Amino acid sequence: MIENVNQDTGFGERSTDMGGRMVNKDGTYNIRRIGIHVHHRMSNYQNMLTMPRWRFLIVIFLVYLLINCVFTALYWFTGPTGLEGIQHQDDAVGQLKELFFFSTQTLTTVGYGRVNPVSEMANWIAAIESLVGFLSLAIATGLLYGRFSRPRAFIRFSNLIVHTNYKGGKALMFRLVCFKDDHLLMNAEIKVNVRIVTPENTYRFYNLRLERSHVDSLVLNWTVVHPIDEDSPFYGLSQKEIVTLQPEIAANLTGFDEVYSSIVVARMSYAIQDFKFGFKFLPMYFSKSKRTDLDLSKLNLIDQE
Amino acid sequence: MIENVNQDTGFGERSTDMGGRMVNKDGTYNIRRIGIHVHHRMSNYQNMLTMPRWRFLIVIFLVYLLINCVFTALYWFTGPTGLEGIQHQDDAVGQLKELFFFSTQTLTTVGYGRVNPVSEMANWIAAIESLVGFLSLAIATGLLYGRFSRPRAFIRFSNLIVHTNYKGGKALMFRLVCFKDDHLLMNAEIKVNVRIVTPENTYRFYNLRLERSHVDSLVLNWTVVHPIDEDSPFYGLSQKEIVTLQPEIAANLTGFDEVYSSIVVARMSYAIQDFKFGFKFLPMYFSKSKRTDLDLSKLNLIDQE
Amino acid sequence: MIENVNQDTGFGERSTDMGGRMVNKDGTYNIRRIGIHVHHRMSNYQNMLTMPRWRFLIVIFLVYLLINCVFTALYWFTGPTGLEGIQHQDDAVGQLKELFFFSTQTLTTVGYGRVNPVSEMANWIAAIESLVGFLSLAIATGLLYGRFSRPRAFIRFSNLIVHTNYKGGKALMFRLVCFKDDHLLMNAEIKVNVRIVTPENTYRFYNLRLERSHVDSLVLNWTVVHPIDEDSPFYGLSQKEIVTLQPEIAANLTGFDEVYSSIVVARMSYAIQDFKFGFKFLPMYFSKSKRTDLDLSKLNLIDQE
Amino acid sequence: MIENVNQDTGFGERSTDMGGRMVNKDGTYNIRRIGIHVHHRMSNYQNMLTMPRWRFLIVIFLVYLLINCVFTALYWFTGPTGLEGIQHQDDAVGQLKELFFFSTQTLTTVGYGRVNPVSEMANWIAAIESLVGFLSLAIATGLLYGRFSRPRAFIRFSNLIVHTNYKGGKALMFRLVCFKDDHLLMNAEIKVNVRIVTPENTYRFYNLRLERSHVDSLVLNWTVVHPIDEDSPFYGLSQKEIVTLQPEIAANLTGFDEVYSSIVVARMSYAIQDFKFGFKFLPMYFSKSKRTDLDLSKLNLIDQE
Repeated sequence: MIENVNQDTGFGERSTDMGGRMVNKDGTYNIRRIGIHVHHRMSNYQNMLTMPRWRFLIVIFLVYLLINCVFTALYWFTGPTGLEGIQHQDDAVGQLKELFFFSTQTLTTVGYGRVNPVSEMANWIAAIESLVGFLSLAIATGLLYGRFSRPRAFIRFSNLIVHTNYKGGKALMFRLVCFKDDHLLMNAEIKVNVRIVTPENTYRFYNLRLERSHVDSLVLNWTVVHPIDEDSPFYGLSQKEIVTLQPEIAANLTGFDEVYSSIVVARMSYAIQDFKFGFKFLPMYFSKSKRTDLDLSKLNLIDQE
Repeated sequence: MIENVNQDTGFGERSTDMGGRMVNKDGTYNIRRIGIHVHHRMSNYQNMLTMPRWRFLIVIFLVYLLINCVFTALYWFTGPTGLEGIQHQDDAVGQLKELFFFSTQTLTTVGYGRVNPVSEMANWIAAIESLVGFLSLAIATGLLYGRFSRPRAFIRFSNLIVHTNYKGGKALMFRLVCFKDDHLLMNAEIKVNVRIVTPENTYRFYNLRLERSHVDSLVLNWTVVHPIDEDSPFYGLSQKEIVTLQPEIAANLTGFDEVYSSIVVARMSYAIQDFKFGFKFLPMYFSKSKRTDLDLSKLNLIDQE
Repeated sequence: MIENVNQDTGFGERSTDMGGRMVNKDGTYNIRRIGIHVHHRMSNYQNMLTMPRWRFLIVIFLVYLLINCVFTALYWFTGPTGLEGIQHQDDAVGQLKELFFFSTQTLTTVGYGRVNPVSEMANWIAAIESLVGFLSLAIATGLLYGRFSRPRAFIRFSNLIVHTNYKGGKALMFRLVCFKDDHLLMNAEIKVNVRIVTPENTYRFYNLRLERSHVDSLVLNWTVVHPIDEDSPFYGLSQKEIVTLQPEIAANLTGFDEVYSSIVVARMSYAIQDFKFGFKFLPMYFSKSKRTDLDLSKLNLIDQE
Repeated sequence: MIENVNQDTGFGERSTDMGGRMVNKDGTYNIRRIGIHVHHRMSNYQNMLTMPRWRFLIVIFLVYLLINCVFTALYWFTGPTGLEGIQHQDDAVGQLKELFFFSTQTLTTVGYGRVNPVSEMANWIAAIESLVGFLSLAIATGLLYGRFSRPRAFIRFSNLIVHTNYKGGKALMFRLVCFKDDHLLMNAEIKVNVRIVTPENTYRFYNLRLERSHVDSLVLNWTVVHPIDEDSPFYGLSQKEIVTLQPEIAANLTGFDEVYSSIVVARMSYAIQDFKFGFKFLPMYFSKSKRTDLDLSKLNLIDQE
């Protein structure tokens, strides 16, 4: 048991009080950075890349409105008479609207030309606004490309981890599957760690030895098996003793995704409430005469032994 | 033979009935995902990247028409009088056409300006349409760049696999070649698996040991040789016995492509009908006084021993 | 000590006179390339990617002005009468300004159309200018995307390296932390070299053996420990003797960043003035009931043993 | 000598007649692909990425002219009266020119609007042309980004390879250097092969064992040393005997470039006319008090022993 103690997890072993998870259910680490300005610890690029699509579109739209309002104000303060073709010459609100729409036409470089700058000042502002539009397009292109070309792992893990009979002993098992049709994962590699709470109320980390930690191509589902032998921190323990350890099992999957031509990463964490003792997974793929059917709705299907 | 049993293929060993290929001729796996909404198992990005060029252009054109129809309808329902410069004022069809073409001019930001928005509503719609055009350009740029920068392996495999005499015994051989002039594959690595049907009517998988599974640079053709020795599942078997096993041989080639600066992958699968017993490959490159000629038309050229 | 001599540092061992650092504080190497034209040893792409944001924007703006000035001159010399719609027909300065603003409208493809080319010559120049604008947009897009998608390591190293008691002997320790919330570094690997000055006044390089040189995931801070045992060039040396060696310690950290899906690199160098003898680092993370707090303001917090 | 025979070079060992180089001076392999249509063995993307800058710009300009000519013809044949604002209504050549310039304004989406489409046919053509312009911009963006973000190795090899005294025996040495200021190569790895002509007039390939084949960071120049010991194909051979072997030495350098965050590759080949017997390289870097100077003009500086 001793040789298996893992000191390379990136987590410390010291603990003053207990209760927090190591890895959240969504695969992020349960860490909060403090003592540094939010501006430094936030990553704008990462945020724009990973926020939900509708939120991304709202951000784009708000920025579009904002830039146009700024330039509308500039046209207004330098004198709307610097532009020709404006209707409602005697109506301030109407004029502002015309300036705003002229601004949108300049920023997007659509430039109909009914309203167009005549005075030097208005011309300069329009020249700068169209450059801003130019660069905004470049930024939008980069962000959108960054969003849809960002390598992701399309992996689902089972919600549960089962403690079951295995080859005359016991084993822990969970499974995972790639749910996208063409995103084949090659050279998939999994590492599984466990954090337990010792009787002295400190954390201890172990690598869990797996029956198999590598597959050439993740074609069907993969049942990850940790046989509970003498090297396991769970060796010889009853269900009750395991619960006392408050184990949290963290799995790290990496592989090469052919569509992205890149290495992708997926993580999962199982806390004690995700353990099922005395259950086993049921098959989720079935050979047919012409092909094999992989039923993703059966990912969490378990049955009593 | 036992030690060579491969459990890392990503395929299961269980089989209820037989007949389906493991890998299709085009290198995709013969798997169907079910139990999940098509929206989740489809990858739009991957589809847009890998569909044929003409189909991609048709999709782009249809999306262009669709967006313009939507905005044409918006201009129509908010009142075509919100736009100035429209001809055929008394002809509904003519008006619709003018609105449609105005829409195309706004979406592509060409904005001639003969027709241009005057009412607040029309101005808002135009402001939003030019933003949509802006973002569409960004998306189109990303997709097109994604398409032609997508790393691919320009590899052709021989259609056949030969069973031939080799160093006093027998061997299975197939060959492959890079068919593009400048796409040199470095650190090429091949893994070959075979799936056979056992007398008990289940599948069994083996790694096939190769005489050489790595080349530094894939400059000429590469003849992949599996010597049928004691470690081979085909050891001592006659042609008829091999046919009974219904072997399917799957090859997985990876390498670093210099043009894409990325790892690329190619796959091939040989079913029993692709086996040629008693044949051998003929040479396909020839040293000349000034260079070496590699004749790709001879890739499948075999002759009886 | 001999077996640990490092000859793979990329640095030579010869030294005619002393004093220069091996690695600057910002992680760049303290090398000057001479005997080659600045044009060949400079990398424009790398410069545009790594210059500060405000400088990048100034460069973009100056290039924008420059291109417009060139085309303004071309319109002027081929005759401003080739354009229709110009106001101030009898004022040379006013005409020049109109030409300049027409140029900005063409380059950014906003094209209002009040001023537009009529003569063949003006039309040709405008046709070329809009193509230039087209390509400039493409270049700007590429540079901006290159800038914000460029993989960087968001790592801070401690400013100091401490010489402290450790497991009954002595050790050198420094620490590092990732300061961005979502940029998890996986498979982090560190290599630490030291360059010392021998009594014969030449340089000698050693690998420093580390207690741990790899972490699976760089979640919390990482204290890098070099135990001063028999293999260390500092074994048995007093503080004064160590100072005499004028050691410079260079650390090279690599890891896989999930956001960029790429390997990133960080470097640090400690000269003798960065050594603290008899100090130790204080903890910088604290387990709370619900999560762990990582306090980045405590990165350099040390205390006397 | 036998154990060192290299069968992983990707080159065959068969040879009918002699004389051609294995690797050209520019690092490409001296292979010609035949028996396949040029369309299949050419890589357009790779061509557009690697052609010289001026040629790239000429291609872009010619494509621009071509597309405009095609659309000019379309406007012409569907009747130039479909466009309003055209001057020179009674002059066919003048009309054609107006159509051509209108086409450029549509393709680049500058759209001044003096000339603008009125008829349905002209409107359709303009709608399609602006879509083509849209997509062309996307393609141009992709190609330009692809060009300047394409990872390249900024490495210069010495023109010569010297045969010199080394540690009581003989050695072959060449050297290489990174000539760009910020493109640090990490984990540089070199493989060196030699092809010799045997007395039986066939080729034979050997790996050349190197004193050092890896450097952590390629900071200064790297002198690659092949000690001619019992494992070397040149062991105990005189200058004349070596010349008789007609050796060609091919070097393959790979490393991780920090600016591109990618692996880059450089190749060099030395034929017998590049060998210098009895010479040695002179130093090319010099330690100064504040830094080290690396003199790239001294890369090929040799002197008699």
